[in-house]
Amino acid sequence: MSSHHIVRDDQEPALIIANGLECNNELLGQLLEWSPLVIVLDSAIERVIQLGIKVDVLLGDFDRNFDAHYYKENHYPIEIIHTPDQDKTDLEKAFEYLIEKGHKAANVVWATGKRADHTLNNFSDLALYRNKLKIVLFDDHSKVFLLPESFKKWYPKDSIISLIPLGKVDGISTENLFYPLQNESLELGFRTGSSNYVAEDGIVTITHENGNLLLIEGFD
Amino acid sequence: MSSHHIVRDDQEPALIIANGLECNNELLGQLLEWSPLVIVLDSAIERVIQLGIKVDVLLGDFDRNFDAHYYKENHYPIEIIHTPDQDKTDLEKAFEYLIEKGHKAANVVWATGKRADHTLNNFSDLALYRNKLKIVLFDDHSKVFLLPESFKKWYPKDSIISLIPLGKVDGISTENLFYPLQNESLELGFRTGSSNYVAEDGIVTITHENGNLLLIEGFD
Repeated sequence: MSSHHIVRDDQEPALIIANGLECNNELLGQLLEWSPLVIVLDSAIERVIQLGIKVDVLLGDFDRNFDAHYYKENHYPIEIIHTPDQDKTDLEKAFEYLIEKGHKAANVVWATGKRADHTLNNFSDLALYRNKLKIVLFDDHSKVFLLPESFKKWYPKDSIISLIPLGKVDGISTENLFYPLQNESLELGFRTGSSNYVAEDGIVTITHENGNLLLIEGFD
Repeated sequence: MSSHHIVRDDQEPALIIANGLECNNELLGQLLEWSPLVIVLDSAIERVIQLGIKVDVLLGDFDRNFDAHYYKENHYPIEIIHTPDQDKTDLEKAFEYLIEKGHKAANVVWATGKRADHTLNNFSDLALYRNKLKIVLFDDHSKVFLLPESFKKWYPKDSIISLIPLGKVDGISTENLFYPLQNESLELGFRTGSSNYVAEDGIVTITHENGNLLLIEGFD
């Protein structure tokens, strides 16, 4: 059954497939399992169609002699959204499309691993859309999301957890991490909380007072 | 002739091969052309030796049942530096090794493209070692370095140049970029200067008043 015949709950995270490095098929399969709304950015559609994935929305500025019309005709009922505005990245436009449609959450793949400026900008977007959309970036080695001021989650012992501040973050305290923080500050360019890990099977608690703090789960 | 028989100028950037995603051989060949001091981080040595690269220094915490002794015996006169300190990454220890030895500059490859926390932390290091070591990170898609407060360089028209602030950077002004900045601020999580490009063949000028500003040259 095509995902188009399923009545979706828009609380279910949409899946955005960006135009960076492909992830492994198992990860992609897991994220597709609940038949999310699938948005593909620009010419990534060529790689996505080859994987046999049904795409709901194709969004981009299509500025490289890209024939979006071909996909409209051959992949009905795909929605084609031409977004020529050069002030925002295609990923930002996809986030704004979802916010406008009332979505609350998005998973994102293929957003890392190629141009470093794109990768950094995509991480920066997690803060830019804070409180508007719950965004999680996945790749083969990492799961990245912005922490709320108070965060609790169960993790198995030895799970790798890095805390990376986008700018400066104050008043960070943790429980059940191997290198605990107690009302400490982290600042990109000075001190990060990279490659910490979970002390014991159980709840990890992380709180902070201000700023934008990324949690990155690492998989080697 | 082995690089060990060349009298080196320590002003020539050393080459650090980190433990992330491999770059293409052409890039690696260009960086090796001037017979730099070559430092390899931890188990990356296994991949580096397969490429036939002569390694001067192997540095790491060797915490995964890694047999550094094997390399000492089989790749004489390689220097083996065991750095068990868990407060710093192996890349940071390599930078400190170079600073201690009087080096002024380092090129770094394989430092991006795998775990997102490692990638972000490695970018953060560019600011951490500001004024101590001139560091340039290279991968197949990007060349990344920290800008001095006043920067001028000749670029061909249409070269992709992104300005990504590590935190907040104020008073940024540019000349000869397609989207010029005039005494403006950029802040990670709010506004970055991603995917700008050079307006005309010629000198690009970028100045800023404070903060840590990355210049990323992008190659698609």
